[in-house]
Amino acid sequence: MASIFTKIVQGEIPCYKIAETEDYLAFLDVFPLVEGHTLVIPKKEVDYLYDLEDELLAGLMVFSKKVAKAVDAATDCKRVGVAVVGLEVPHAHVHLIPIHSVADMDFSKPKLELAKERIVEIADAIKSKL
Amino acid sequence: MASIFTKIVQGEIPCYKIAETEDYLAFLDVFPLVEGHTLVIPKKEVDYLYDLEDELLAGLMVFSKKVAKAVDAATDCKRVGVAVVGLEVPHAHVHLIPIHSVADMDFSKPKLELAKERIVEIADAIKSKL
Repeated sequence: MASIFTKIVQGEIPCYKIAETEDYLAFLDVFPLVEGHTLVIPKKEVDYLYDLEDELLAGLMVFSKKVAKAVDAATDCKRVGVAVVGLEVPHAHVHLIPIHSVADMDFSKPKLELAKERIVEIADAIKSKL
Repeated sequence: MASIFTKIVQGEIPCYKIAETEDYLAFLDVFPLVEGHTLVIPKKEVDYLYDLEDELLAGLMVFSKKVAKAVDAATDCKRVGVAVVGLEVPHAHVHLIPIHSVADMDFSKPKLELAKERIVEIADAIKSKL
């Protein structure tokens, strides 16, 4: 069965898209740790990040860099933290998290619940920095 | 002033080395969250991961993949989690953390204190899987 991210890639499930290329997609995490928390995925459905072939893995990071710089510019943060956990959705994804402290990267803390208007505002702000 | 990681690269400060190439170095974190917690760095001293030029960033991930697979093979874990925080040592570094749950990636929890013999054993086990 297609992963939830493949369904997003295929347009079956909507997302707040930030950027897209032939091979990669970036969109807002709908369960964000902080405002601006963004996911970057390869469109190819591969469960484990390090099972991506070298070229696709390398390209994922270069694409993430572009997205991270826009997240950094659009949000109030000290850094954009990067995390790949890989225990939930079986489709490799890079979390880009605008952080003030390492506590902002604690995945066990409750996720934010944002109004749709605010989410659209955040997506637009990030896209404007690309 | 040279970062602590540059001092490790230059051999001024010792480390438990896992792997090395012309551009990159992997070694055990001396303040590990779990056994097998490994750091991967570019030898070039750049503070922010996403300020690395594309080629060096891409190569860092491909090198990390090789190291992560060895960490995975040498430790009892579900996944090797990946994190880049960037708030402490101003020299970009990728954390490779063999995890069972996302709680193993909580950087605010107390670090392990391991006997030197155990650290050497872990380093040897990872290196044997390279």
